[in-house]
Amino acid sequence: MKTIKAQDYSIFFEDGKYEFLTNFLKKKDYSSLFILVDSHTKNKCLPIFLSKISEEFDFKIITIPAGEAFKNLQTCQDVWQELTKLKADRNSLLINIGGGMVTDLGGFVASTFKRGIRFINISTSLLGMVDASVGGKTGVDFYELKNQIGLFANPEMVLIDVNYLKTLPQRELISGMAEVIKYGISYDNNLWRVIASSTEVSNLKNMAELIHRSIEIKNEIVTKDPKEKNLRKILNFGHTIGHAIETYFLQDSKKNTLTHGEAIAIGLICETYLSYKLFQFPKKEMQRIKDYILAVFGRVNFNSNDFDSFLELMKHDKKNVNGNIRFVLLEQIAKYKINCKVAISDIVEALNFYLS
Amino acid sequence: MKTIKAQDYSIFFEDGKYEFLTNFLKKKDYSSLFILVDSHTKNKCLPIFLSKISEEFDFKIITIPAGEAFKNLQTCQDVWQELTKLKADRNSLLINIGGGMVTDLGGFVASTFKRGIRFINISTSLLGMVDASVGGKTGVDFYELKNQIGLFANPEMVLIDVNYLKTLPQRELISGMAEVIKYGISYDNNLWRVIASSTEVSNLKNMAELIHRSIEIKNEIVTKDPKEKNLRKILNFGHTIGHAIETYFLQDSKKNTLTHGEAIAIGLICETYLSYKLFQFPKKEMQRIKDYILAVFGRVNFNSNDFDSFLELMKHDKKNVNGNIRFVLLEQIAKYKINCKVAISDIVEALNFYLS
Repeated sequence: MKTIKAQDYSIFFEDGKYEFLTNFLKKKDYSSLFILVDSHTKNKCLPIFLSKISEEFDFKIITIPAGEAFKNLQTCQDVWQELTKLKADRNSLLINIGGGMVTDLGGFVASTFKRGIRFINISTSLLGMVDASVGGKTGVDFYELKNQIGLFANPEMVLIDVNYLKTLPQRELISGMAEVIKYGISYDNNLWRVIASSTEVSNLKNMAELIHRSIEIKNEIVTKDPKEKNLRKILNFGHTIGHAIETYFLQDSKKNTLTHGEAIAIGLICETYLSYKLFQFPKKEMQRIKDYILAVFGRVNFNSNDFDSFLELMKHDKKNVNGNIRFVLLEQIAKYKINCKVAISDIVEALNFYLS
Repeated sequence: MKTIKAQDYSIFFEDGKYEFLTNFLKKKDYSSLFILVDSHTKNKCLPIFLSKISEEFDFKIITIPAGEAFKNLQTCQDVWQELTKLKADRNSLLINIGGGMVTDLGGFVASTFKRGIRFINISTSLLGMVDASVGGKTGVDFYELKNQIGLFANPEMVLIDVNYLKTLPQRELISGMAEVIKYGISYDNNLWRVIASSTEVSNLKNMAELIHRSIEIKNEIVTKDPKEKNLRKILNFGHTIGHAIETYFLQDSKKNTLTHGEAIAIGLICETYLSYKLFQFPKKEMQRIKDYILAVFGRVNFNSNDFDSFLELMKHDKKNVNGNIRFVLLEQIAKYKINCKVAISDIVEALNFYLS
């Protein structure tokens, strides 16, 4: 599949990508090479990576604990300390091998170490491939606020190898589908039709194509609007409500944590409802989206007692300005409106629609 | 005095600068305005600032402890938390009022909060004015390594008002002179002649001119080389040895801490000696530099037992690549050579020259 040219780097899909990387590393002559993995990708992905890349390189491996709960400044400090101890300098390179948590955190750590060293991202999760591999967002959570501390910084290159997806638990694979669905509904009717043709996610033979098309879409959007002034806001479809629910479940120790995709899936249904309510998004299509998402993700258990907490968290969304909660909504598939004001009562209705 | 145009912002000196800032704040329509001060500048500089700016603005004040010891990630976390609590959003502005510690830390905090909010720097120390007000370096110390965590980010504007210098203790004012001297010796013989004409630093009537010329020089250098590939390295003259000594005194609780300038002053003498030893820098001029600096700064107390620690710290300098300690040295006043390799024995000789 074709390489995608992003802002000032490339996202490689082709068979020859590891040879390309090998040559790139030789040519660039970095002073030292570091690999950042989490405890999962260290066992499951790092051996694959090392088997495909020339043995001549002396990689120093830094491992962090897996999971969103460790996407924080403490983990950053551990990695900065490790880099310092291992004498990383400004010409060192950090290769992040993992899902979005590893590439977001690793990108932030690299861009702020000695005022910035270079980094490469090897996305190993579906979510990481379709969401984190383009757009330059790096960062970590802070006091339960997602990605509150971070900056925009691009990697030297990104490698996409769908073989890593085989290492994922089914639940993680499905999680990534939420973003693929989002690209379809909000931006590309064709993509949505392909997705909707089967609810057997892990059987999708065309996963590589879905990923490639998703990245193409995201790249198109962020290239036109790198700093999220306008167009890029459509990437937020499903996320205003979804993020709040994700944070809520993360904070409440009595509840099972949701994956990012499971939370966004709820947001997609609710925000499609808001689109229907406020902008006449077709009712039949709305029902189809809800049915599809519930078939893939199941229904998450919460009730109206939780709504106030959701609403409070929405007010803290990074995208808010002057304390107003703003939504991206749809008039129909792939026809979006940004900066939509929505009444609290409509948000409540949308949450009830999900539960109904 | 003339406004200096930096990369994508301006450094204002003129009398009308506060009116300009007032109009700027009105025009830009930030969602909220924050001021970052330390415990000193809160008492001594903030009242001056507020007396000169329109009363119509609702500034929220965030205070951090004063001193290099607090230029760390913990202080950043306190400020990030305060910004979160006070509901800062992406359209908020942070005005940093203080010396280099406040503007370096405040710039870093702003550039990484919600992936970057805008900031303005009001430099209140001589060092801050001539060093931190241009070049886009932001950051904090990490495990005793100076500015180990940070990034390049430019403020919206910088205001220079020499009236703030009257609030400084004499020792802090003198500290800033080390950088002014550096600009003279390494880049501008005229400037050096003006400086050398008097050792009565606080009586210098032409302080405003010295500051303006110093910023002009730094701006010229960083505009040509923003990411420190070549030319910008000359700003490091005196700093390879100076930084190591500064860190050493900071780490040793039995020793009095040195100001940045006191440490750099030592570095300037030692690295001038290395210039003489390796590149025939004129001996007479070297002696004049040493005499001048010792007259202004006095001699700091250390001995050959400390040398090994100095050398160990030099190896950790951010500017090093492949573990080699690299110096900027001079063939004569304002004629520099970058990336000079220096033998350990010569560094020891240079330290002894300072002590002799």
